Amino acid sequence: MDIFSKCYSFTRADEVKAAGVYPYFRAIEQNEGPVVKIGGREVIMAGSNNYHGLTTHPKVLEAALEATKKYGTGCSGSRYLTGTLDLHIKLEEKLAKFLNKEAVLLFSTGYQTAQGIIPTLVNKGDYIISDKDNHASIVAGNIMAKGIFAEHVRYKHNDVEDLERVLKQIPDSAGKLVATDGVFSTTGEIAALDGIVKACKKYGARLLVDDAHSLGVIGKGGRGTASEFGLDSEVDMIMGTFSKTLSSLGGYVAGEERIINFLKHHSSALIFSASPTPASVAAAMAALEILDSEPERVQRLSSNASKVRKALTEMGFHVLEGSTPIVPVILGEDTLTFTFWRKLFDNGIFVNAFVSPGVPQNLSMLRTSYMATHEDKHLNRIIEVFGEIGKEMGIIK
Amino acid sequence: MDIFSKCYSFTRADEVKAAGVYPYFRAIEQNEGPVVKIGGREVIMAGSNNYHGLTTHPKVLEAALEATKKYGTGCSGSRYLTGTLDLHIKLEEKLAKFLNKEAVLLFSTGYQTAQGIIPTLVNKGDYIISDKDNHASIVAGNIMAKGIFAEHVRYKHNDVEDLERVLKQIPDSAGKLVATDGVFSTTGEIAALDGIVKACKKYGARLLVDDAHSLGVIGKGGRGTASEFGLDSEVDMIMGTFSKTLSSLGGYVAGEERIINFLKHHSSALIFSASPTPASVAAAMAALEILDSEPERVQRLSSNASKVRKALTEMGFHVLEGSTPIVPVILGEDTLTFTFWRKLFDNGIFVNAFVSPGVPQNLSMLRTSYMATHEDKHLNRIIEVFGEIGKEMGIIK
Repeated sequence: MDIFSKCYSFTRADEVKAAGVYPYFRAIEQNEGPVVKIGGREVIMAGSNNYHGLTTHPKVLEAALEATKKYGTGCSGSRYLTGTLDLHIKLEEKLAKFLNKEAVLLFSTGYQTAQGIIPTLVNKGDYIISDKDNHASIVAGNIMAKGIFAEHVRYKHNDVEDLERVLKQIPDSAGKLVATDGVFSTTGEIAALDGIVKACKKYGARLLVDDAHSLGVIGKGGRGTASEFGLDSEVDMIMGTFSKTLSSLGGYVAGEERIINFLKHHSSALIFSASPTPASVAAAMAALEILDSEPERVQRLSSNASKVRKALTEMGFHVLEGSTPIVPVILGEDTLTFTFWRKLFDNGIFVNAFVSPGVPQNLSMLRTSYMATHEDKHLNRIIEVFGEIGKEMGIIK
Repeated sequence: MDIFSKCYSFTRADEVKAAGVYPYFRAIEQNEGPVVKIGGREVIMAGSNNYHGLTTHPKVLEAALEATKKYGTGCSGSRYLTGTLDLHIKLEEKLAKFLNKEAVLLFSTGYQTAQGIIPTLVNKGDYIISDKDNHASIVAGNIMAKGIFAEHVRYKHNDVEDLERVLKQIPDSAGKLVATDGVFSTTGEIAALDGIVKACKKYGARLLVDDAHSLGVIGKGGRGTASEFGLDSEVDMIMGTFSKTLSSLGGYVAGEERIINFLKHHSSALIFSASPTPASVAAAMAALEILDSEPERVQRLSSNASKVRKALTEMGFHVLEGSTPIVPVILGEDTLTFTFWRKLFDNGIFVNAFVSPGVPQNLSMLRTSYMATHEDKHLNRIIEVFGEIGKEMGIIK
């Protein structure tokens, strides 16, 4: 059998394209944060993870430009061998201080970070215990752990009772790591961290929290999920990314120095991957400094999202409740979602269409997300256009 | 059992540090290509993958700076959703043309590229057939495929007969993907591509070649392994990285349009990871243009490495034969390798120490590698210092 046959018979994308409603891989020609240029036209971006709009902040730009001039455009090696700059170490120290952890280790992408941690710590005979709705990067880490004969079990989404049920069945003699998103990426829901921490302690499990969508978003001054619950010192490892609040590309894990030291010397995803570029590290550092010195930005981000969430809910849309910048509008049917997406796009609004099998068909949604740099004029326009299309399509009255 | 106990009991790195010969995670303070600054001191770099020294080339720098100014410091989303720039598409087209393939897909790191391909194509019931010395990124992809119940088999390193033996045992009804490094990263050895291609065709397997260390290094104008053998159209997929010849951070796969289209819509490592930064894409594009317009650079790279390989061999070192810029000097014992490394470093030469378990103890080596931008004064100094230390330590006469 030709292993490519699955590729030749895949036609769904062609069909959605032929229907004129294909929402993916749209090329952006200019990016100013809340407004981007696509197909020569200005479009309001309501689907980015650029939560603080810092990718074009003068201080962040300047830091990236200076680092490129000083160190060049890439490191040409892994952190382990020839790809460590003083810049990497400085950012690790700053992040550790900001997150109140002993040490931090950078990875080249957020996606790679989970697999830099999970299969490195969770070996044959150990257990990875994962929320069933965790991000794909944790799933990839879990699959790798399975591939080296670790045990992989999932608990019901954000269900502490089910987590306890799972933990209770694992032998005392096995190592146990529980992994959860801090803020779940599709829905914006916050993990029930108090219950999860208690369950971990009760059964001797260690806890990894993915704060990709939490840093800059929740917690004291945007310090993330553990901070939101006042459990900073109870969460064993916090991982995160540079590609959201921190405005570039890369990832990190924060924890005890001995754990970080072990990962540094055993993690394939670290040792065999070129390190984050000078520009990306410098940009992340500048973004972190801005977040640290201007914590009021976190409030602005929150109130921007609240404004849209409240308005769309009041208009009659099925909006998931929440308190993060992720505001999902459930349409519950793929074709409806693609069509609504296209009408929004034609009216100058860009959001993300999440359809099956990525989400269950009844959760097909327009996942919208907001930035601290959205102005009222942007938010009002988003609300207005949603209302017009919702009425036209008979989704709201 | 505490899953962290393996971390608390890991002491080898501390011991090597205490002995003063720890060679890893050395922080570089400035990077000029052949010469870097470490601890305030200028050191000749003889261990980088920056094969053409283009990370500081004026055109590459300029491209990265301009892209940062135009698009910002990051894309804040995946290619699939909000992270595609016209720049990504332009580089994909240029790479496809350069490699004479229908289409190219970019990934955020080279490391992630293999797992963006392998478990996406090799599903339950399919086979991934892998050279036993393939790079860790392919191994990670294989482990992920195993984790989703694909079959994983390995063949003896670069041994076409053994590959045939393995392929013969796989049922006709199963999909088969063979994966090999083009240039093996530790030794610089070139894959026996003619035999591998023949075996794949005979048994209906598709072939993936990792040209991370081949692009810019071998083949017509640096077009890689397939080109080196005149088999451009016979290799189904060529993957590679931006972090070596192309001077930034990212990866790519080149192949038939239908295969690339399938990967675009099914690859977790693509869909759930933020896209390569504007600076990295622009830098890679500029580096590719330089490689394309100045093919004589490939010859210079080759002759630089040959000069050192020949000199060290003649001096009596155990140097692996080869024709790539990777020149491994086998010392065959870890402590000896660490000690030699330290003496080189103290004399202003930086190379990579590869010890067990990364390589078998009897292959403990100083892995040196060269750039097109090394000048004769750098190469002569490397040869001179190797000679002095080799004599002092009684390794050569």
